[in-house]
Amino acid sequence: MPPGPTNTIVDVPGLQVGHAELTGEGALSGTTVVLPDPEGAVAGVDVRGGGPGTRETDALDPRTLVERVHAVVLTGGSAYGLAAASGVADALGAAGRGFPVGGPGEVVPVVPAAVVFDLGRGGDFTARPTAELGAAALAACSGTAPAQGVVGAGCGTLVGGIKGGVGSASDVLADGSVVAALVVVNAAGSAVDAATGELWSARHLGAGDVEPPALPGDRAALLTALRDAAAPPTLNTTIGVVATDAGLSVAQCAKLAAVGHDGLARAVRPVHGMTDGDTLFGLATATRPAPDLAGVQEILTAGADCVTRAVAHAVLAARSVPTPAGYWRSYRDLVAGAV
Amino acid sequence: MPPGPTNTIVDVPGLQVGHAELTGEGALSGTTVVLPDPEGAVAGVDVRGGGPGTRETDALDPRTLVERVHAVVLTGGSAYGLAAASGVADALGAAGRGFPVGGPGEVVPVVPAAVVFDLGRGGDFTARPTAELGAAALAACSGTAPAQGVVGAGCGTLVGGIKGGVGSASDVLADGSVVAALVVVNAAGSAVDAATGELWSARHLGAGDVEPPALPGDRAALLTALRDAAAPPTLNTTIGVVATDAGLSVAQCAKLAAVGHDGLARAVRPVHGMTDGDTLFGLATATRPAPDLAGVQEILTAGADCVTRAVAHAVLAARSVPTPAGYWRSYRDLVAGAV
Repeated sequence: MPPGPTNTIVDVPGLQVGHAELTGEGALSGTTVVLPDPEGAVAGVDVRGGGPGTRETDALDPRTLVERVHAVVLTGGSAYGLAAASGVADALGAAGRGFPVGGPGEVVPVVPAAVVFDLGRGGDFTARPTAELGAAALAACSGTAPAQGVVGAGCGTLVGGIKGGVGSASDVLADGSVVAALVVVNAAGSAVDAATGELWSARHLGAGDVEPPALPGDRAALLTALRDAAAPPTLNTTIGVVATDAGLSVAQCAKLAAVGHDGLARAVRPVHGMTDGDTLFGLATATRPAPDLAGVQEILTAGADCVTRAVAHAVLAARSVPTPAGYWRSYRDLVAGAV
Repeated sequence: MPPGPTNTIVDVPGLQVGHAELTGEGALSGTTVVLPDPEGAVAGVDVRGGGPGTRETDALDPRTLVERVHAVVLTGGSAYGLAAASGVADALGAAGRGFPVGGPGEVVPVVPAAVVFDLGRGGDFTARPTAELGAAALAACSGTAPAQGVVGAGCGTLVGGIKGGVGSASDVLADGSVVAALVVVNAAGSAVDAATGELWSARHLGAGDVEPPALPGDRAALLTALRDAAAPPTLNTTIGVVATDAGLSVAQCAKLAAVGHDGLARAVRPVHGMTDGDTLFGLATATRPAPDLAGVQEILTAGADCVTRAVAHAVLAARSVPTPAGYWRSYRDLVAGAV
């Protein structure tokens, strides 16, 4: 299936993305917001990691009241970073966007969030996203193609010790519906096959995707550089959103998130360990009709593929970042150094 | 990590495997039993498919009473095939093996089971595993390396339209603990990368694993043959057991099963769809001590890898099967025909 015009999650009509980053000495973290239209998007979630940090995920159980969410927050700062979602909720509520609970303007925005562990990666353990940073990421939301790599919640991320980041990808299905993913890649496992130096995700890339750099004929130096770059695994987590404009139910959105994790498994190995908090949200703007069974299957398959390709895009967009805590090398720089 | 002596699930000390197959015109189904020592094995489960057929999985919730199971039944016959587990339970109970509930000999064996859809694949929709077949598979249990390919519950299986089967693999970790998997591969998705003709799992194979056949330099004929062989997807399901001798808890066994599904995602694409009932059991004979966090991580990683390699072994052990319902071609025969 071909990607949409931007090959990112904003190809799903109505979805916007905004990033905000901490600044200053020792800071290397940020927040990313995925924002639907004011009526919200149908949402489900699948938490597969052993060390998740989340909020409002219980409200996404298909048996609960809430069907639509008003934003999804992906953020650095580990559990501290959940404060960013409070900033988003406050700002949305002030704008009258949320679940109506009373008179005019009385709303409660439903803002699920998931965090990645990046504490101290810039050198300062206490530099972490705040409510204000969340509000800034919300204010930055737009329907143009989001920046990828070391931006927003991807700032302080590592994957198998090399630099992670934010990545996105989309697919347009035969019936015109759009499926897309945006991920924040921060995993104990590796995005690279240590035997070949290739990205695990490379063979899942297609026309319109970012091409991985050519690898040297003699891989020995590259494989050594990759091994040396791999920092010892600490706490981690890959988080993200898999979205579509199809008319999925809450339960189907949860299934979309669940199958999205298969895409993660193909791009990162190992994954879903005890120190990964891997969490994916499934979003349906539902501006298109409910798909039949075959349509659901197609959306699930595309969702998993978009996650795999989004991981590739995150790693390929990442640049090396020197900090007092460590020199976080990018895949591209490691390959370039070994060519 | 090197495989154990047989590179199958019986490398986990105490585990036995038995197969039984239906015979006669139109029959192409069977049952496979994984049998721990009489005290049972700690067990968890993770159901990831959209169309599962199972029994006794609720008893494996970590919050429930039961910690150990007395056998795991993998069977053809779709939901009808659950009868095979009743035959296993009756036979175990008669032998005094089970959860003690009263006086001497008063036991209830806990026998979780999962089924694959294979109805009609041999031509006769009504030829399906019975309680007697389950008892026969139990009686066939032994600690020698189990047959792989078109045996037991693998008889009527297809994967992406080509012949599936039973496969197994094991890993011996640095501390001497063993991790292994046995899977019954029957998926709507494909085990083969349609762009290259290679098994998705091939790059995860290592020393001691079955080598895939060499592919022709010119792949065009093979890719066409693979495309033509692919029957339209019907109902499916990959099921299996990921096992270890480490001292895992029920919850850790469920996590072992969960991460096992990552191994499935790497070997089959797409997977976990609405018509796949993909279910994995995690078993711990727990004859070794409880691992620390790093040990748990190693076991999880090895479990996922064993599942990937077991899928490869299933496909590589499968032979073509002509039946009145269709000529189910094996990967090996398709490759041989195209070389």
